[in-house]
Amino acid sequence: MPRYALRIEYHGAPFAGWQRQADQPSVQGAIEAALARLEPGPHTIAAAGRTDAGVHARGQVCHCDLEKDWSPFRLSEALNHHLKPAPVAVVACAQVAPDWHARFSAIERRYLYRILPRRAPLTLEAGLVWKVPGPLDAGAMQAAARQLVGRHDFTTFRSTMCQAASPVKTLDAIDIAEVETAAGTEVQARFRARSFLHNQVRSLIGTLERVGSGAWAPGDVARALAARDRAACGPVAPPQGLSLTGVGYPDDPFA
Amino acid sequence: MPRYALRIEYHGAPFAGWQRQADQPSVQGAIEAALARLEPGPHTIAAAGRTDAGVHARGQVCHCDLEKDWSPFRLSEALNHHLKPAPVAVVACAQVAPDWHARFSAIERRYLYRILPRRAPLTLEAGLVWKVPGPLDAGAMQAAARQLVGRHDFTTFRSTMCQAASPVKTLDAIDIAEVETAAGTEVQARFRARSFLHNQVRSLIGTLERVGSGAWAPGDVARALAARDRAACGPVAPPQGLSLTGVGYPDDPFA
Repeated sequence: MPRYALRIEYHGAPFAGWQRQADQPSVQGAIEAALARLEPGPHTIAAAGRTDAGVHARGQVCHCDLEKDWSPFRLSEALNHHLKPAPVAVVACAQVAPDWHARFSAIERRYLYRILPRRAPLTLEAGLVWKVPGPLDAGAMQAAARQLVGRHDFTTFRSTMCQAASPVKTLDAIDIAEVETAAGTEVQARFRARSFLHNQVRSLIGTLERVGSGAWAPGDVARALAARDRAACGPVAPPQGLSLTGVGYPDDPFA
Repeated sequence: MPRYALRIEYHGAPFAGWQRQADQPSVQGAIEAALARLEPGPHTIAAAGRTDAGVHARGQVCHCDLEKDWSPFRLSEALNHHLKPAPVAVVACAQVAPDWHARFSAIERRYLYRILPRRAPLTLEAGLVWKVPGPLDAGAMQAAARQLVGRHDFTTFRSTMCQAASPVKTLDAIDIAEVETAAGTEVQARFRARSFLHNQVRSLIGTLERVGSGAWAPGDVARALAARDRAACGPVAPPQGLSLTGVGYPDDPFA
């Protein structure tokens, strides 16, 4: 039974998240349904990151097992055909070893969070960024972010629903940059870690936004982290600003 | 009666175009309806560029006359409130002289056309770019575009419905660049002229895409121009890749 790795892009808005659910549309469910059009199911696929409702992906990675030997090109073409009109696309496909696993073989996840400070309602960026009213001090946000990088107990910055055994994670990088766009100057924050806790990125960015807007001092973030208390977290940022941009493996299956 | 200039951003998808129509949604109609919530109408506004159905704008400019003396800030806030949930936003507002005219005072229009060559269906860029299957040679497109810049009879490149008295226009610039984006390497073409004919940009870009894909030689474009025959035009490019990015005036009212 050959195994295939798929790199997936999706718009999160119409989905209750990655994970299959009995009564709501999910990205996993959409891909499994497309697979069932190629070979009788049921199919169960595994993904590197179980994104929440409304969160986008540029570089989600999952794997599937099929009976037939598909050429990667024909498999991605056939899946994209059956995925229509859902905003989900297979952007790369490769055959991998039978013991390769999209989730357990992954050694890095990368996320991007986009915040756009502006007064006017969004038109062309609606659903793709978090609009905030005031200006943001990206330098202060980066200074605060430096206190979060490294190995820490992130109890403050994970959902109370998080099922990870331990709240201790190593955050490898947070890079914050101002980017000029046609809609205004947006703040882009890129996160990199082996793995993340549930709601960790949105909890961190909601807290960093407080620093950027001037409501919190950069040092308040270190205190919130040290509190190891969910109540010390800033407001959780909304999902539409977030996207899973990529997943790292010891050997890139798509290279 | 004070006159106000408004810079407007919109997503073209839900509209039959800028121009008010009896039985279909239009951007002009949406803004006039919002004005009527502020002061009893009817209101008739004039715009610099009458964009077609599905065409976007970043920097459309229109003007309106009101009874009251509005602060520009309050006027844009009030209009944006009443425009919701339509994807139309007032991004700048200024009081102007009573003889200032959004259309007749304009001395330059700027358009951007985005083409994304890729196999996979669009997800996050759906409705914002023209997806084409093959790779594009941006250098060949720029070489062909050079033959179109200047004062010419653009009969080949205007809609048969175009109501302009003359097909002769001066195209000041076409700048074509490859831009790396998260969805792939897109080709962005920027057009600048005092004014354009109906469907001129989409006719030009549809023809330049033929050159980029290799179906036409760059020299074929000069021959198509010289033919002064609508039948010599390449296929007209779809509206969703196009946006009106800005309008130039002798004195920028928003400066």
